This record gives sequence, C-alpha cells and structure tokens, in this order.
Amino acid sequence: MSSTSSEYVQKITKRSEDFAAWYNDVVLGAQLADYSPVRGMMVYRPYGYAIWENIQKLLDARFKATGVVNAYFPLLIPESLLRKEAEHVEGFNPQVAWVTHGGNEELEERLAVRPTSEAIIMQMYSKWVQSYRDLPILINQWNSVVRWELHTRLFLRTAEFLWQEGHTLHASAEEATERTLLMLEVYRSFLEEDLAIPVIPGRKTPSERFPGAAETYTVEALMGDGRALQSATSHDFADHFAKAFDITFLDKDGERKYGYTTSWGLSTRTIGGIIMVHGDDSGLIIPPKVAPIQVVVVPIWRSEEDKQKVLEHIDRIKEVLGDSFRLHIDLSEEKTPGWKFNEWELKGVPVRLEVGPRDVANSAVVLVRRDNRDKSQVPLNDLVVRLQQTLADIQQSLFDRAKQFRDEHTFECESVAQMLEVLDNKRGFIYAGWCGSDECEAAVKEETRATIRVVPLAQPEDPGTCIRCGNKAQVKVYFARAY
Amino acid sequence: MSSTSSEYVQKITKRSEDFAAWYNDVVLGAQLADYSPVRGMMVYRPYGYAIWENIQKLLDARFKATGVVNAYFPLLIPESLLRKEAEHVEGFNPQVAWVTHGGNEELEERLAVRPTSEAIIMQMYSKWVQSYRDLPILINQWNSVVRWELHTRLFLRTAEFLWQEGHTLHASAEEATERTLLMLEVYRSFLEEDLAIPVIPGRKTPSERFPGAAETYTVEALMGDGRALQSATSHDFADHFAKAFDITFLDKDGERKYGYTTSWGLSTRTIGGIIMVHGDDSGLIIPPKVAPIQVVVVPIWRSEEDKQKVLEHIDRIKEVLGDSFRLHIDLSEEKTPGWKFNEWELKGVPVRLEVGPRDVANSAVVLVRRDNRDKSQVPLNDLVVRLQQTLADIQQSLFDRAKQFRDEHTFECESVAQMLEVLDNKRGFIYAGWCGSDECEAAVKEETRATIRVVPLAQPEDPGTCIRCGNKAQVKVYFARAY
Repeated sequence: MSSTSSEYVQKITKRSEDFAAWYNDVVLGAQLADYSPVRGMMVYRPYGYAIWENIQKLLDARFKATGVVNAYFPLLIPESLLRKEAEHVEGFNPQVAWVTHGGNEELEERLAVRPTSEAIIMQMYSKWVQSYRDLPILINQWNSVVRWELHTRLFLRTAEFLWQEGHTLHASAEEATERTLLMLEVYRSFLEEDLAIPVIPGRKTPSERFPGAAETYTVEALMGDGRALQSATSHDFADHFAKAFDITFLDKDGERKYGYTTSWGLSTRTIGGIIMVHGDDSGLIIPPKVAPIQVVVVPIWRSEEDKQKVLEHIDRIKEVLGDSFRLHIDLSEEKTPGWKFNEWELKGVPVRLEVGPRDVANSAVVLVRRDNRDKSQVPLNDLVVRLQQTLADIQQSLFDRAKQFRDEHTFECESVAQMLEVLDNKRGFIYAGWCGSDECEAAVKEETRATIRVVPLAQPEDPGTCIRCGNKAQVKVYFARAY
Repeated sequence: MSSTSSEYVQKITKRSEDFAAWYNDVVLGAQLADYSPVRGMMVYRPYGYAIWENIQKLLDARFKATGVVNAYFPLLIPESLLRKEAEHVEGFNPQVAWVTHGGNEELEERLAVRPTSEAIIMQMYSKWVQSYRDLPILINQWNSVVRWELHTRLFLRTAEFLWQEGHTLHASAEEATERTLLMLEVYRSFLEEDLAIPVIPGRKTPSERFPGAAETYTVEALMGDGRALQSATSHDFADHFAKAFDITFLDKDGERKYGYTTSWGLSTRTIGGIIMVHGDDSGLIIPPKVAPIQVVVVPIWRSEEDKQKVLEHIDRIKEVLGDSFRLHIDLSEEKTPGWKFNEWELKGVPVRLEVGPRDVANSAVVLVRRDNRDKSQVPLNDLVVRLQQTLADIQQSLFDRAKQFRDEHTFECESVAQMLEVLDNKRGFIYAGWCGSDECEAAVKEETRATIRVVPLAQPEDPGTCIRCGNKAQVKVYFARAY
C-alpha cells in the first residue's frame, strides 16, 4: 500500500492545540477502546485490554503480598440490601441500573446491577464471621460495575467500567485504619513505580468522602492539561457497615463486638491517566512495565536480496532476546517502514529496533527510544543488556518528567483571585491553606470550579491562612479542576 | 480448641450414600462457595475462586498460543441487537434478566444483562472489519453471564456464572470450521492434561445445538455418579451471525463477502466437574496443576522443646522448597494435627507433609499422598525432586483412575429396555447406534430421561442399528442422564 506515514499521523489532533480532541484521537487511533451501541458503555479493544491485564498482574501481586485473596460476589444486589446503610444508598441511588424482570416474569424485588459491592459482601461477612479467629478477612474482587452516567468519556467516565474492589473486616478500629493506609501505600507505590505516575497521597474532605465512609483516602495525580485525576481511593468505614449489616464477632474476652471494615479500589480510568500523563503529539507513551509490547522490530529492505538477509538477521535477534521482553516483529508487507514507525509511536511502544542491510553487515540493530527519540546502534551481543537498561531508564525518565511537570504546575496561592488567574492561564495544582469549613470549600468550588482534591498526609508545621476567609488555616491542601 | 477430627468429618455425607448431599457438603465444607441472598446466584469463596484463577492462567496461555487476544465488551445489550439473529433470541429470551430503569428514569429500550455476548460482539465486528487484511479476528473475554434459572446447583447451574467466551471472525467457512475444531482440541487437552478429566470430543445433535449455530461441538465427561457433564462447547456459526449483523469484508478478489464466525466457552461448572470426578468420602481431591495449595505442612509436637525443634525444621523445609510449589504451612495452634489432617483432606490438597520430632532427628519429613494415602519418609535433601515426581504422578493417576471409571461405566446397549436397566442400576454412558432422526432421539429422552450427549468424532466402520427403531444406524453416540 502506498499510504505515507504523514497521512496516518494527520488523524491525530495536536496535544497542545486541543487536549480533549487529542485524547480521543489517541484512544481511538491506537485502538485502545471504541464506542459501543450501548449508551455510555465502551468496548475495551485488545490493545487497551492488554494494558489492563498487565495492571492486574502487577497490582494483584502487590495485594497478595499483603495477605489479600480474591473472590467473586453476585452481580445483582437486592434493593433491600442496598438500603441497609443509609448514606450509601443515598450516594448511589441516582446512578443505579435496575433489573426488574427475570425471564418473562416481573421480580418481586428489583435488583441493582452493582455500582459497588459493599452491600452484598457485608451481608456475606455477617454470615461468615463468628469469632475473632475468623478475622481479619482480606478479600478483593476483579469485576465490572455499572453507574448510570450522562456525560461519558472513554476510560475516564463510563456507565460500566472495570476495576478491583477490596473489602476487609477487622477486629478493631485501629487495625481497619492501618489497612486503609496500607492499601493507600500499595496504590501509591504501584502508580509511581509501575505506571510512572507521581501522586499525592492524602485524605478527601468530608464532603468528598465515599458514601458511608468515616474517612476516604486518595492518591491524586496531575494530567498533562493541568487537571487532576483521582487515581485510586481507600475507605475507612469504622463500624458504619458492621452496624448496618450486623457484623459481630465473639472477641477473646468473651464479649460480642462489632467489626470494622474498609474498601479500596482502582479502575481502568488509570489507563486514561497513563495516556494523559505520558502521551505527546505522536500519540501514546506506555511505561515499559505495563506496555503490551515493550520492543517492536521493524525490518527495512529495498531489494529481494536484502530482504532475505534482514529476515535471517531478525531470526537471530529473536533467538538472542528469547522470552526476556514482550516483543513484536512487524513483518506486514503492505506498510512502509515509515508508516510502521508512526503506527508504533502512536501505540506508544517504548523501544523500536530498526533492522536494515547495514545492520546486518554490522551484526547490530538501531535502537530508538519512544520517549526522547534517542537513536543508537547496538551490537547484537549487547542487545539484551542494553534493552534491559533502556527500558528501566525509560520507566524512570517518564516518572521524572511527569514529576517535574507536576512540580512546575503546582502553585502556592494566597487568595481566590490569584488562584483563578493561575487556573485560567497556567493550569495545575493550587497549594493553599484551608480553614476546614464546608463553607469556604463550597465557595471556592462555586467561584473557581476547582475542588479540594486532597489533604496531603505530609503537612507543613504552619499551614498559613485560609485561601478563602483569611482565618488561620487548619491544613494545607491541593485544589484543582478535575476529571 | 478441643474439637476432634471426627467431629469435623461427620459433617460430610458419604459419597456412596447420597452423591448430591455429599457434593453440597464438600462445596460448603471446603469453603469453595456459598449461597447468596440473591436468588440463584452463588458466592465464589477465596478457595474456590483460587481454583478458577489457576484454570484461567492455564487456559488463557493455551488460547494465546493459538493467537487469541483478550478484550472486554459491555455487560448490557439492547434488546434490538439481541433480536437480530432469530434463533439466538428465541433460545435465550426465556432466560434473560432485563434492565428497565437507569438512575431514576425508565429506559426507552430495555437492556439484557448478557446471557452470552454474540450480539454485542458481532455488532462491533461489523464496524471494525473492512478488508480481508483485518481478518481473522480472534478475541476472547473472561466475564460473567446471567441466565435466569429456577433450579440451581452450586457451580453446576446458577443464575450467574463465570466463564470465558471466545468469538472469532474468518474469511472462509473452512477457516471457521478449522478454528471451531482447534478450540475443541484446546478444551480436550486442557481438561485431560490440566484437570485430569477424560472427555469425549464430538458434535451435539441438531436439537442440542447452541441457538444460532450451524454445528455445536462438545467435550463430554462422566461424573462419579454416572451422570454426564458437558464440560465446554465450541460453535461453528457459518455465516448466520455475519448475515444477521451484516459483517462483510472486501476480499482479495475485490468482491464484498460475508464473514464466518465461531464462539467457544468454558465455565466454572468445570469446578463442579473436578469435585465430582476426583472427590471421595473424605472430600475434594484437586489435581495438582490447579490446586490452590499443592503441598501443606502440618507440624506435630507434644512438648515446648519439641515445638522449637519442629519449627526450626520447618524453616529449613521452607528454604529448601523456595517458590517451587504452592505451599501452605499450617501453624494454627487451636487445632490438633488430626483435625488439620482431616481439614486439608477435605480441601483436597494433593500432598501433606507431616513434621514431628522424629523427622527432625532424621532430617526428613513424612509425605502423605491425598489420592491413595501412601505414606513415606523422605530425606530433606531429596524433597524437591520427590515432590515434583509425586505431584506429576498424582496428576496422572487421577486421570487414569477417572478414565478407568469411565470405561467401566460405559455400556454398549442394543435396546431401550436394556439401556433403562443400565441407567437405573449401573449408571453411566450408553454407547449405541442412532439412525439420525429427531423422532428416535426425542423418544429415547422421553422414555429414559437420557439424551444424546455427544456424537463422537471417532466413529466405528459399522455403527450397527438404531437403539430405538432398529433401522440401520448413521452413527454411534453416547447417551446419558446429565447435569
């Protein structure tokens, strides 16, 4: 085929020109996902789903290292169960899809397609737990949930999304709080080390808590357009759900006591985060640890004679690399090498190996980094080690670059006027004092469309004054406009 | 605690006395699953779900080795899509759970909670495919489906179940048929090699085909009570769905043509198969390849001094075994060793290592096989190799034993009267001739409650006469009463 590479790239809007259009172009162009005929629901295409599979593998191992096991609970939840915890049902009711008919009959009680699984899981825990010896219970499930959304965006907000939800039950309030914070730290390290996304761990304000939670913790990240993305949350429920679902146990001292529960989740919206934190005008840049393809090989030849030599050389490369990397060799003949370069850049493959007649002669390959486009010739003998180093370096560089961007887009402000100016012109996080009142929080939101994203765990000795009322601040917080 | 092992085991009905009660006792007692407050839906508890995770890992690798990739499609399917293929909707309509309300509003069109995903996936394929270059598409998804069932049984028949469903699209009828048979072979080898369940691969009769299929293939297994279990199916749709969903492509010759599709699935009912094929009066026996715990270590001591020595010896064992096996060390102090032996037998762990003071003195352990209770002392130095051999041997022995049972419970019959006698007294497969008529098939079912489970791929030269009408048989088939 005669299509040139530029035709291919033309389809992608420039990131600097229109971030939202660029985002959609990249998601569709790289075939991560597609719209579906079901309102608000998307299709996870194989290349996008492969990122999720890598996320699952890495995060699941981190969970299991803390003693968590997986299980699966029913998709449909009777309305009466959902109503047991008052705040919880109030929070989710407007978003529930209801099953009213099964087979050809109307149901006596309608069933919610789970928007989250606290209700059904707590009901089972109340049955399973008798004694302190049965505690703690540390269960996670990988599934999808449905939340009726009117305004949807691929990966970021959809009526159905894939996620994991962990639910634990403990004998004491302290142990539950400890677990909530432990899982927050699991998310922080996973996001920073595996997805190369720097995050700020901390609390949500009371008005932003998960329905039913005593405390909600979050890890908050800054996207390439200066808006924030809540990347995972961890909730400390104290005994709220245990009381609502009558989860009690016989303690060591012979007394019957209520348990303490937590829940914590991370969803496929983190794939949106990967795109928006690392991508550039050419498309995706996927961190090596979760890239479906870490290394792509593109052959180059002009004559039939060259072709044979290049293909033989590629066989040697395959042999040298073995199973050490997630490797793809692009042998398709209907595309030019230039077209392929652009396609694999759009798809964000961290390293490209170009193999032409000159490389055959030198027993080498040309290695091109996706992140900074550095190009170097590497002897075949050094290839495994150089690829290991390069992938590790790309992983670290992506994190450093994102952190530098975040630091450069974090602004200390002392008034709402100043904050508005920053939000409209420079975009990013506003780091400022807050007196702790709902009133000031709501007023800032009203005036700026920015919310308190996170009250960081790490606090300065003197938080200064409240950005809105000027009174003494209780804490320093991060404000931002958010996804 | 003072509970003795016999108290624990008392709870399990004897397999020989009441197979159905034994099955339920084992599922609940081994904590594989539990009933839920949602009618017909079960909870997959961590120990049961861990078997499914191992199944997923092994089967997914087998799929990927044939070029299949994973993806995810929406849970809810608009009724109009489900109606596009006439036979398909007729087959599933009575089993569909319907979502009629989203948030607080009634939907304009009701949405089916997927009973299977042909409709939504074919709709996407019709959008994605333009040219022969886009073919084949080889996609699988791991998910849950909902089919409204009145009579449910844990793992075997539930209103929601976990499974995988693969959906492929091809340029020719031959290629689709080839893929259908390839996936049947993947299931056969997986069931026999990984689950140690011998199966008979073959076709379903037209009356037992999947709704919309041109041909349905199955792998059929015999359970310990002589009833059959359909363990996986693979469907060749020819161009039925392509025509219903207008899936066309521009072929090499410049002509626009319809595609050819297949689908194939295996569900968590195979866990029911594992229980019913391998289990015994003491509970589960899980084939080593999918056992959540392959080796359990039970310490034995009477004095505090012995305890220290035994625990040190167990540390050495841990070190020697490293990550080579899925290992659990049962250090709980509230249970006696005898209690633990019974508990881990109930849970079907293939190998138990007993470690007492004498083993410390001998630098050895006592190895006990779950399948035949063989007991031997093994020096610590030989332990890794002995465990590898023993686990491989258990895997093979379970298969051999199941195959021998099946062979002993397969009966050639020449009349319906003879067949009835076998079904009522000996139970098992009836191997007999069939003339190929719907009439004889239906009559046998009516008279014996046994159906044609499978028309085996391997056929004798002379199939003899039809068991019902006595005319010349077209094929030899396996009849059985089934789950």
